[in-house]
Amino acid sequence: MSGSPAPSRITLYALPDIPDVQAGDDVAQLILEALKRAGLALQAGDVLVVTQKIVSKAEGRAVDLTTVTPSRPAAELAQATGKDPRLVEVILRESRGVIRQRAGVLIMETRHGWLCANAGVDRSNIAGPAGEVALPLPVDPDASARRIRAALQTASGAEIAIVVSDTHGRPWRLGAVNLAIGVAGMRPLSDLRGQVDRSGYTLRSTTIARADELAAAAGLLSGQAAEGLPVVLIRGADYPRGEGRAVELQRPPEKDLFR
Amino acid sequence: MSGSPAPSRITLYALPDIPDVQAGDDVAQLILEALKRAGLALQAGDVLVVTQKIVSKAEGRAVDLTTVTPSRPAAELAQATGKDPRLVEVILRESRGVIRQRAGVLIMETRHGWLCANAGVDRSNIAGPAGEVALPLPVDPDASARRIRAALQTASGAEIAIVVSDTHGRPWRLGAVNLAIGVAGMRPLSDLRGQVDRSGYTLRSTTIARADELAAAAGLLSGQAAEGLPVVLIRGADYPRGEGRAVELQRPPEKDLFR
Repeated sequence: MSGSPAPSRITLYALPDIPDVQAGDDVAQLILEALKRAGLALQAGDVLVVTQKIVSKAEGRAVDLTTVTPSRPAAELAQATGKDPRLVEVILRESRGVIRQRAGVLIMETRHGWLCANAGVDRSNIAGPAGEVALPLPVDPDASARRIRAALQTASGAEIAIVVSDTHGRPWRLGAVNLAIGVAGMRPLSDLRGQVDRSGYTLRSTTIARADELAAAAGLLSGQAAEGLPVVLIRGADYPRGEGRAVELQRPPEKDLFR
Repeated sequence: MSGSPAPSRITLYALPDIPDVQAGDDVAQLILEALKRAGLALQAGDVLVVTQKIVSKAEGRAVDLTTVTPSRPAAELAQATGKDPRLVEVILRESRGVIRQRAGVLIMETRHGWLCANAGVDRSNIAGPAGEVALPLPVDPDASARRIRAALQTASGAEIAIVVSDTHGRPWRLGAVNLAIGVAGMRPLSDLRGQVDRSGYTLRSTTIARADELAAAAGLLSGQAAEGLPVVLIRGADYPRGEGRAVELQRPPEKDLFR
């Protein structure tokens, strides 16, 4: 329509045909190849949301459960929750401590400080030569994001941001959502303190978890099983530039009324 | 690039120039006019994410605080938390009960069953003839969503979904995010139970809060103060069709380890 104001717009692209990732793979290279296949070139301000699972696999984090001997605490916690003692052993190695335990439920604080079920450890059911495999989170998802960003910026010349995402359940609300557990090239929180909207209502919420919104948006494309869409390009989103870390999203225990 | 596979794509548009909403305004009509200004026509499968504030204003929910006489419980709770007793009175009228209280903090369970700060009541600081105003949530955001959807479908002929969103803080994580408090034309949860990804990892999270992901994505465009972008059109997103209600997202208290 001639003369109509262009609406603000954001576009999300799921990068196609990223192959199954193996230990030692170069995630940035896989992303560059997928971008090329899709006919997309990185632009300044783009955000790439990468699911933690491919980062973790590439970093060789997978653990063959047949090699795991459960400790006594793992065996006891497995008994109490009805979980596989070998899996619980891996979970405990990834954790600072147990937040809640019930039959079938183990909410942990990870070594990074994230609160989530099973310390974020995924489990494979493949009955293959590798046996059953557990896949913990990346050791330092912020560092992973920085490495991927550096490689993509060198290759493309574009200043971009990276979000490493994971899918977490939540208190109060059913259903999981994608959240940020690593960032690079952005600060995860947008500070709106003191701003009012145009009708004079003070913003109740003074900071917005922009990295979590980006991760959740990407979840609309990547959040399906068996589809192989672990990387989403978000173009046109406003986010606070800078050198932030996702761990800034962690609510300090003394300011958390619900842990 | 000729022959390249088209990447899966989602586009978000913030509808421009929606005027300040008054009690009695027709939100669906305002959306239709904004769509026309933007040169956009609704298509089957579109989702419109509408911030609760304009719905609430249109439904005449604003309360002039100069007319509010605090009850004794409101006065006591105001004393304990350092909040305005008149505002606390409005909050209590909107609530089933107090979940947590601290100096400056009042986490409530709303009459709808949402857990959020101040029962979702916004506050105006306008020093105008109307005096100070408090703005509660819509009485029934699912019903609001259904009304808006019915009007837009009649006008456009397109089968769409509506999400009414609000911005909430969260346990465990700093920063607020947009969440769904009303839906129409969709079920809020995507059930992925039993699915595995292509490398054989069972999905840890069996249901995805699709309505919350849609709301969070819209927050990337609408979540700024003073910009007047209360409606975001999301095109290309997959969501479970059906007649759902956002209250299905509420975790039953007996399944909530953190309330």
